Amino acid sequence: MDLLSIKDPTFLKGLNDEELSDLAQDIRNFLIEKLSVTGGHLGPNLGVVELTLVMHQLFDSPNDKFLWDVGHQAYVHKILTGRADQFDQLRQYKGLCGFPKRSESDHDVWETGHSSTSLSGAMGMAIARDMQGKDNTVIPVIGDGALTGGMALEALNHIGHEQKDMIVVLNDNEMSIAPNVGALHSMLGRMRSAGKYQKAKEDLEMLLKKVPAVGGRLAATAERVKDSLKYLLVSGMFFEEMGFTYLGPIDGHDMQELKSNFTYAKKTKGPVLMHVITKKGKGYAPAENDAKGTWHGLGPYKIESGEVVKKPGPPSYSGVFAETMKKIARTDERLVTVTAAMPGGTGLDKFAKEFPDRMFDVGIAEQHATTMSAGLATQGMKPVFAVYSTFLQRGYDQLVHDVCRQNLPVVFAIDRAGLVGADGETHQGVFDISYLRHLPNMQIVHPKDENELQHMLYTAVMQNNGPIAVRYPRGNGFGIPMDEELRELPLGKWEVLKEGADLSILTFGTMIPVAMEAAEQLKQAGIEVEVINARSIKPLDKEMLNELAQQEKPIITLEETALLGGFGSSVLEHFHENSYHSVVVERLGIPDWYIEHGSVPELLEEIGLTVDGVQQAVHKLVPRKRQRA
Amino acid sequence: MDLLSIKDPTFLKGLNDEELSDLAQDIRNFLIEKLSVTGGHLGPNLGVVELTLVMHQLFDSPNDKFLWDVGHQAYVHKILTGRADQFDQLRQYKGLCGFPKRSESDHDVWETGHSSTSLSGAMGMAIARDMQGKDNTVIPVIGDGALTGGMALEALNHIGHEQKDMIVVLNDNEMSIAPNVGALHSMLGRMRSAGKYQKAKEDLEMLLKKVPAVGGRLAATAERVKDSLKYLLVSGMFFEEMGFTYLGPIDGHDMQELKSNFTYAKKTKGPVLMHVITKKGKGYAPAENDAKGTWHGLGPYKIESGEVVKKPGPPSYSGVFAETMKKIARTDERLVTVTAAMPGGTGLDKFAKEFPDRMFDVGIAEQHATTMSAGLATQGMKPVFAVYSTFLQRGYDQLVHDVCRQNLPVVFAIDRAGLVGADGETHQGVFDISYLRHLPNMQIVHPKDENELQHMLYTAVMQNNGPIAVRYPRGNGFGIPMDEELRELPLGKWEVLKEGADLSILTFGTMIPVAMEAAEQLKQAGIEVEVINARSIKPLDKEMLNELAQQEKPIITLEETALLGGFGSSVLEHFHENSYHSVVVERLGIPDWYIEHGSVPELLEEIGLTVDGVQQAVHKLVPRKRQRA
Repeated sequence: MDLLSIKDPTFLKGLNDEELSDLAQDIRNFLIEKLSVTGGHLGPNLGVVELTLVMHQLFDSPNDKFLWDVGHQAYVHKILTGRADQFDQLRQYKGLCGFPKRSESDHDVWETGHSSTSLSGAMGMAIARDMQGKDNTVIPVIGDGALTGGMALEALNHIGHEQKDMIVVLNDNEMSIAPNVGALHSMLGRMRSAGKYQKAKEDLEMLLKKVPAVGGRLAATAERVKDSLKYLLVSGMFFEEMGFTYLGPIDGHDMQELKSNFTYAKKTKGPVLMHVITKKGKGYAPAENDAKGTWHGLGPYKIESGEVVKKPGPPSYSGVFAETMKKIARTDERLVTVTAAMPGGTGLDKFAKEFPDRMFDVGIAEQHATTMSAGLATQGMKPVFAVYSTFLQRGYDQLVHDVCRQNLPVVFAIDRAGLVGADGETHQGVFDISYLRHLPNMQIVHPKDENELQHMLYTAVMQNNGPIAVRYPRGNGFGIPMDEELRELPLGKWEVLKEGADLSILTFGTMIPVAMEAAEQLKQAGIEVEVINARSIKPLDKEMLNELAQQEKPIITLEETALLGGFGSSVLEHFHENSYHSVVVERLGIPDWYIEHGSVPELLEEIGLTVDGVQQAVHKLVPRKRQRA
Repeated sequence: MDLLSIKDPTFLKGLNDEELSDLAQDIRNFLIEKLSVTGGHLGPNLGVVELTLVMHQLFDSPNDKFLWDVGHQAYVHKILTGRADQFDQLRQYKGLCGFPKRSESDHDVWETGHSSTSLSGAMGMAIARDMQGKDNTVIPVIGDGALTGGMALEALNHIGHEQKDMIVVLNDNEMSIAPNVGALHSMLGRMRSAGKYQKAKEDLEMLLKKVPAVGGRLAATAERVKDSLKYLLVSGMFFEEMGFTYLGPIDGHDMQELKSNFTYAKKTKGPVLMHVITKKGKGYAPAENDAKGTWHGLGPYKIESGEVVKKPGPPSYSGVFAETMKKIARTDERLVTVTAAMPGGTGLDKFAKEFPDRMFDVGIAEQHATTMSAGLATQGMKPVFAVYSTFLQRGYDQLVHDVCRQNLPVVFAIDRAGLVGADGETHQGVFDISYLRHLPNMQIVHPKDENELQHMLYTAVMQNNGPIAVRYPRGNGFGIPMDEELRELPLGKWEVLKEGADLSILTFGTMIPVAMEAAEQLKQAGIEVEVINARSIKPLDKEMLNELAQQEKPIITLEETALLGGFGSSVLEHFHENSYHSVVVERLGIPDWYIEHGSVPELLEEIGLTVDGVQQAVHKLVPRKRQRA
């Protein structure tokens, strides 16, 4: 059928099984075709076509509440709720968001992006429903990877306790982004292979009827065996223990099976866990046979060959990080690396090839990763936790309480610092300076290029003063030559990249080229701008700041991070602490709102972090007469 | 024996059972006596006397690593490691810390204060041990309450997966601080009543031998039954599923039983979970019979009667919070309150007496509590999450991602904001402004007294603009008259408490009386100081700030919170954003280090947040000639 004609999911009620199957195929073809141009999360969405169709056929969204955990698997839901026509602009500036978005549709009742939040959100909705005397069904859909996140386990514990009606769909595709790790994962594997739980329970009851009567202590045990029937088989026991009715394993591509289980679940009192087995990339061979997680989320590809279109370019920052870790590990046995389910994204998969025993993937568990790194550091190891800026937010209390308070030398390799682009507001790495800077003992640095990155990482591992965060952006470096020898950089020291008498720009990382280009253009207008690589964000280069204050030049701070509590604020704090109360400081950075998806240049344009924007700020501060000189 | 003579735990190796029992009694008497004067965590420590004695007798601390989760149960450990002589200064300024402290003793290998961190720390230590080719034993001791914290569950999942040698002691006293909640708790209850796991396994094997041979499909089931023996009984199954060898339940006051289990655990490969049942307050009747959690941590008491010494005083801020919630709940059905295992501390136990169905205690699970509140808000409810400033740190990512990003009207009643005193550096509520202020959509207010608190809470619940945090300190209000009628206060508006032409102090909450007194004393020196109740921390009162800037008076910002990224910094940001570059601003607040335990006045003295300190700052800014005028 013509997917563009879909306005809302009510039409599904009238479809028979064959029509539903045809529609599933149409949706698959649509996704494969559209995403080959725009890129996006193909694998996860191909895996939930049947699941989503059945949910929308049997239930009444948005009265019934669907909560898509992480949310990258909501494309089918978006198609069925009237948004097929927007897929040409998927994840593009002002276009369709790659995650559920309340402003896009009433059917998006819960926004996601980070994992493991859906059960807590669902519990809030279930409590509200009961207090308001309503009777809708709340259905969080959570992956097996997201289930290992601590907050999902906290929620399971509470939901099981309160016995609220709810259908939790465990979408088990044996992967988070990378292949899954953890004891829970092994357990799910046993459950998958154990076969149907209900059937086994019946068999068992028959079997036990054959047990002859016994007396004494054995009689008591026999009684307990019968009482404990539901705990007898591996399958489902964990969830039954947690207070859920377990249904499964269910073939997530068999719509009949899905329907009968949802129907049963809807009639069941209290929380139900439906263990649905799906295949990521289902129906598109290149994505089905994807061991490396390439097809989880990707850019454009060729449909026929499944060849991913790669733009040639200089090495990525993540790649440089991985290479540097290998280099250090070869000579320093204390180095050990940690990731929370992102070996591919962080580059640590490459490190693990050479040092499989020195890389620990803890699953989606940033809290544990942070504090485990603290534990390693207490024993003289040199742990490096590679983590995206946005995901380290999950480890904030652990940073405060375990790492910084104990002043332990843990290195945080903060990848995707700054705007990330297409993933949008849930993933922008713009808060880390604000949430790290006020922590005692924490040091924060940011390199100007990939060569400086390798030296900074080396410096971070070698220093033994306490925790240190090395930030670097998503994407590629500049392709500049890399020094052979790693060396330690002085912490708390900045670098003058270009001198200029009229105004100083203090900036770091991605904004350095912007400042340099603005300075170049301003020179033609007769304004001499100094550009400083403020690579040490905490501590600041106090000596240089004091010199600048004495020169009485105006100063612009320029950062691709949140303005509130950010780098520029720390410069203000320094000046006022040192009684330089009259320095003119203009702060440029990310304003006090969430930045949506789009290409990074478009986003920077929107908030004025551009060559033009910097020039305008300079013109405001440098008197006209100078400009005409 | 004379506990003061203990230098380290090696003497324990030579004690026989009777001597060990006598020592246990001596320790109990010592704790009951000492804490009757100083106050402290009596209940938890009386519960672990035997456990701690056996651990120190069988193992070799600090080579073997003991990690005390939360850490309020480490008093016995402190006595056995040579610190009995410091108990007169327990939790006092420069005295013995109430939690493990690395600077106090080599035996304190891991610092705690917040819950659920010990397993992650232990995992780091176990990995380090194996990489370094050492063979010590790592023993985290975690309570049943702390086990429900998400990060502990993340750690269980990883430890079970990696199969590192480790003995996890689950200290199950059926309480966290308040009686425990959650499905895991119910499960532990079943395990306690199920009796010994090993014995049951043996019985079961005998029983199954009596099953006659069967054929066909039943044969396969019978086979699986045998393979699944260890999963048959409720007891231990959860932990066995997670990859642990489960031992228990073990009587935590029976030293023989503890010894034989520790000995067995030490020989076992891979992680072991010892389920130890203890009684909080064991051996002291008033503490044993404590349903309300009074004896968890408390001030001085009379030993004979068990009467807790209470200083009469005005109502506490927590009490005013609870009363206000009740008042609002009576007329607004949408109000619902949430706590993470702190119904007593936050005052919500009082609320729950009148509204048992409108208070949700989710257990130690701040992440879930935060996001569940977001879920409630999506459905038009008015959730109020009452939480200590320091514990909300656990919900930071949930604040960023779920609450603020979706701009949901959740009220955070932030109790214990500011210095808390005896609990020390893990509990000081000094970071929340810095970690909340940079979040888009977040509003933050702080009342000057308990009457303003009730109006602010009402305002927070009634406003529907987005998330809002109402901060208030630990302890009592001023005893001022409370208005009968709740009313809405204008957000973003400050209040001039005292006029003065020479300098303005912008301050809030606990620092207002300090500023007022300083202003009073300065008046006698001829200096007129204005004092402003800056009760809206975000948004600032921009109009008033602009007026102040135009008056060109110097400004002091005064706050009992971290200076970096704090309230004072936001004032600097405002001035520079609005081109008031030359306003003289001096920021007083908490410096960039962790503030240890002590009474709040002592701590404030240490960091200069006193009447004298403020006066000195004023003298620095107001020219001498004025002082002599």
